[in-house]
Amino acid sequence: MTRTIVASATREIVIGFDQPFCVIGERINPTGRKKLAAEMIEGNFETVKKDALEQAAAGATMLDVNAGVTAVDPNATEPALLVQTLEIVQGLVSLPLSIDSSVTGAIEAALKVAKGRPLVNSVTGEEEKLEAILPLIKKYNVPVVAISNDETGISMDPDVRFAVAKKIVERAMDYGIKPEDVVVDPLVMPIGALGDAGRQVFALLRRLREELKVNTTCGLSNISFGLPHRHGINGAFIPMVIGAGMTSAIMNPCRPQEMEAVRGANVLAGTDKDCMNWIKTYKDYKPAAAGQPAAAPAAAPAEGAGGSNGGRRRGGREARRAAG
Amino acid sequence: MTRTIVASATREIVIGFDQPFCVIGERINPTGRKKLAAEMIEGNFETVKKDALEQAAAGATMLDVNAGVTAVDPNATEPALLVQTLEIVQGLVSLPLSIDSSVTGAIEAALKVAKGRPLVNSVTGEEEKLEAILPLIKKYNVPVVAISNDETGISMDPDVRFAVAKKIVERAMDYGIKPEDVVVDPLVMPIGALGDAGRQVFALLRRLREELKVNTTCGLSNISFGLPHRHGINGAFIPMVIGAGMTSAIMNPCRPQEMEAVRGANVLAGTDKDCMNWIKTYKDYKPAAAGQPAAAPAAAPAEGAGGSNGGRRRGGREARRAAG
Repeated sequence: MTRTIVASATREIVIGFDQPFCVIGERINPTGRKKLAAEMIEGNFETVKKDALEQAAAGATMLDVNAGVTAVDPNATEPALLVQTLEIVQGLVSLPLSIDSSVTGAIEAALKVAKGRPLVNSVTGEEEKLEAILPLIKKYNVPVVAISNDETGISMDPDVRFAVAKKIVERAMDYGIKPEDVVVDPLVMPIGALGDAGRQVFALLRRLREELKVNTTCGLSNISFGLPHRHGINGAFIPMVIGAGMTSAIMNPCRPQEMEAVRGANVLAGTDKDCMNWIKTYKDYKPAAAGQPAAAPAAAPAEGAGGSNGGRRRGGREARRAAG
Repeated sequence: MTRTIVASATREIVIGFDQPFCVIGERINPTGRKKLAAEMIEGNFETVKKDALEQAAAGATMLDVNAGVTAVDPNATEPALLVQTLEIVQGLVSLPLSIDSSVTGAIEAALKVAKGRPLVNSVTGEEEKLEAILPLIKKYNVPVVAISNDETGISMDPDVRFAVAKKIVERAMDYGIKPEDVVVDPLVMPIGALGDAGRQVFALLRRLREELKVNTTCGLSNISFGLPHRHGINGAFIPMVIGAGMTSAIMNPCRPQEMEAVRGANVLAGTDKDCMNWIKTYKDYKPAAAGQPAAAPAAAPAEGAGGSNGGRRRGGREARRAAG
């Protein structure tokens, strides 16, 4: 049985076929968030802290930490900033972390200070990347996300993407890294641009599980890019990838619709024993807004016209927040 | 390619692996609805008409019609009542219908008056049923739902359920009925009682599609029986069964969360070409209640404390109705 172990100083999590889906919170990432990038450059980590606490409260299994604030000389600036961000987050929450950077020096700097057993995000099939990252993975004995593209880019042929993943797993083994410490990202394309994107990834996930026997992950919301009501597409995609064998995803755990899909799919995949987590989360479900769990955290103030309606209020607030 | 053709007088629908999921509206069924049963016995079909129109407006692909109002001598009373109900429904909506009865005489009476090519719901693997129903299926050249239980009941062993389905398909072939006119119901158990129910049905669906090459259906909401927030479980189950190969389900199309799951899974399974139906349905999505499509019909009056909030109101009304 494939078991990828990640850990913080105090908490160990197993990613595996027989485990609840691993939700890797994506929010601590300044890419495309100008305000957050500006704050982090100024040494202001209030949003980072808020994002860490909110994602933990929303039910994230682990948190991704990215400090890529600038495209200008990241080699010089990113290592220190990633270390600082990581230390703040691991001081605040007990979840295992994912060290997310395209800068090798930043990854190594973060590995030196990370407690427990973080996940490294990521390596690709590019020779330069393999040679830079895999020795660190071996040295620090940590698992790594393997993205199935290489020097030729992202192939539209799923067989090529599978072959790239296989190559990375084999190269990792050459370095003495076990396949269970390679978590493959088969790459998810926007379904609005590529109608075959869903079927491609489902077929790839099956092969990765049955033939390579590896754990898998993806940047989940990419599937719905460009479409209206993206939460609805994401919420249908999650059960489908879980059914196809995916064991983790980098996603926003503060979205009630998506987390409900995760919890429901865990029940149906048989990884929520006796439906305990489902029942605990939804037993007092008072759907002011059907589809939104009343038990999920409501961290933002209400917007819109809703007044107080007793037990229903909390659900309504979340719904409006998710809608905003 | 397996193609099950159903039709009304004016509309033909194909159930198939490359087709959008076929939603068979379940509501015209007095089982467990005492008020509806009493109305139908009195010759009052107002609820039947309302249910027919609402399900059609909500996006049902076809409608199931059941007139089993009583356990007392149904052989005497059900044929006439089923004929009457069927004629009212087919006079009102243009959707193909499913003739749903456990009374052979009622099925034949309905087949005599049904326009187009209705689906017959159902036959089982019981000898008596096979011998009663299959000749009618051949005589009227219609498709049939085949439920995978027999004299020994419902097996908890999926291999036995597969074997029963295979036997029905083979027996149908002996009568000159094509396998594509047999739509297999693998039987869905409540996941709250049987933790393996999801994995069982996913595995069965795959085998039914890959080995028997038949279309499939199920009574969908059975999966969530006994659990809190059943719409959430149903909404996760739908994408998973579609991913596993199921091509239709008997379900309530008036539930926005479930229909959103169907539409999302159609996008991801590649049966909603260019995402046209998704975009049409959700392009103006204003989520007063995230997770609920603003474009779905809001047929019932609002309950709860919500006031007017302009464009968001419709979504909010539906959400409260679905929650009620």
